[in-house]
Amino acid sequence: MSVENSTNDLSTGWFTEVFQNEGTAFSLKVKAKLHEEQSEYQKLEIYETETFGNLMVIDGCVMLTTRDNFLYHEMMTHPALFTHKNPKKVVVIGGGDCGTLKEVLKHPGVEEAWQVEIDERVTRLSEKYFPELCESNEDPRANFFFGDGIKWMADAAPNSIDIIIVDSTDPVGPAEGLFAVDFYRNCMVALREGGIVVQQSESPLLHTDSIIKNVQKDMRDAGFESVRTLPFPQPVYPTGWWSATMAGKNHVLKYFREEDAEQRPFVTRYYNKKVHQAALALPQFMRDILHTE
Amino acid sequence: MSVENSTNDLSTGWFTEVFQNEGTAFSLKVKAKLHEEQSEYQKLEIYETETFGNLMVIDGCVMLTTRDNFLYHEMMTHPALFTHKNPKKVVVIGGGDCGTLKEVLKHPGVEEAWQVEIDERVTRLSEKYFPELCESNEDPRANFFFGDGIKWMADAAPNSIDIIIVDSTDPVGPAEGLFAVDFYRNCMVALREGGIVVQQSESPLLHTDSIIKNVQKDMRDAGFESVRTLPFPQPVYPTGWWSATMAGKNHVLKYFREEDAEQRPFVTRYYNKKVHQAALALPQFMRDILHTE
Repeated sequence: MSVENSTNDLSTGWFTEVFQNEGTAFSLKVKAKLHEEQSEYQKLEIYETETFGNLMVIDGCVMLTTRDNFLYHEMMTHPALFTHKNPKKVVVIGGGDCGTLKEVLKHPGVEEAWQVEIDERVTRLSEKYFPELCESNEDPRANFFFGDGIKWMADAAPNSIDIIIVDSTDPVGPAEGLFAVDFYRNCMVALREGGIVVQQSESPLLHTDSIIKNVQKDMRDAGFESVRTLPFPQPVYPTGWWSATMAGKNHVLKYFREEDAEQRPFVTRYYNKKVHQAALALPQFMRDILHTE
Repeated sequence: MSVENSTNDLSTGWFTEVFQNEGTAFSLKVKAKLHEEQSEYQKLEIYETETFGNLMVIDGCVMLTTRDNFLYHEMMTHPALFTHKNPKKVVVIGGGDCGTLKEVLKHPGVEEAWQVEIDERVTRLSEKYFPELCESNEDPRANFFFGDGIKWMADAAPNSIDIIIVDSTDPVGPAEGLFAVDFYRNCMVALREGGIVVQQSESPLLHTDSIIKNVQKDMRDAGFESVRTLPFPQPVYPTGWWSATMAGKNHVLKYFREEDAEQRPFVTRYYNKKVHQAALALPQFMRDILHTE
């Protein structure tokens, strides 16, 4: 099948991510490649796009853009923090771009936040190319550890953490061990009573019957009594539709602090109380596959 | 910027839609082009894709695929029909693929449904390549008119219709007159008391401050007292995130028939009562731009 006119030619001036297994591709028009390096762990690229601000690419996969990362970062953070009764210590596993950490630190009740990222170069590049995501990095509550998140969690003191946010890449390669019952068991041990773990869990359309179902099962097998998946839009990821799966130690996911969410003392662009409630409403096909509300 | 490896080469075996103004492109891997014609109104193409079933393209723009059209068709239909107290006569303007008509006819209370599509060839191709969307075309309640929807609505008998669903292409070219206060005024006249008009209103991320805001304003200027925009996922459209905007004659949008939605006597894949409630929750940036809940 030949390209029929030159306006469809993406070979010059575009960054394209091809999802071979999904039979789809997504492209962003780029002005310039700002940076490229092979870190100890992966290939990192930064582009300046025409319409989505800066773009970070890891091993060929779109990680985030300036324009739409707020959707993901807000939904990985605020539903969990407004569900927990009083989160004081929050740990982000992965999340090297610092966007999740920034959202966590918006909560005045948080006393201590950790970002445990394997690749320090991701954070250094984010400081340079996504400075708005790093604006809380000097917050005295912010702590950084660059190393293996799986090992960090295995070594964490029992009953020491209120919320664990697993802000990882896809469940292949380095992140595979973060989508595993052993990891969630270590999270369970490290969490205090009423603690919550959140995992990015890929696309509702593509992965409900595979990754999402498996993440839910692994979390339950690890001893978490309540599990909920929250879909949200994320234009630069496959299908433009993504999800976070939360699991609670004890039955903590039944309610959230609606009044606190409504009165939140900080700015959000996607999240609000009603959006939180809405994210808990699963499409019918997800309910059917996951046998849940 | 050169393509770095052959797996990113989309020049062969892919259908690509480039959104030049948005600086993005979306591609689907195709097995074959099944059909191509220039109808009286537009260029129509049908492809067989690797993973999304069949694909209909009009004038180079993705219209629908077998795999994900249920999201759009359900959300263009069921929120309006479960908001109206007792919809008996429903008119679809556009919607030549018959998918919206099919969803409308799932409601047992509907006595008469019209599909007013300008291009009969769209419907004929849908019968052949999307037969599942046309399975209610023989329903005795189904009526078809192939011609200009703008003129049809201007000529419609006053106080004769309960719900008008504007299932159109983008607001450029033939569909431009459907995104206009004059058209909505004619809808207002044609609707009975408590009537509802629904318009597909493009992407929340891209168009809240332009098309969505204008559609809401035009609907209010046409005399509709209540207006709500409902976002939903739609992977094959730009950003993977789309919206429907409903307007009610009188204050009919405040409640919907929740119990009837819960007890609906038909199968849906996206829609359910909680999804309906959820779609009414606007992201914070939309609330800020539209000055609404």
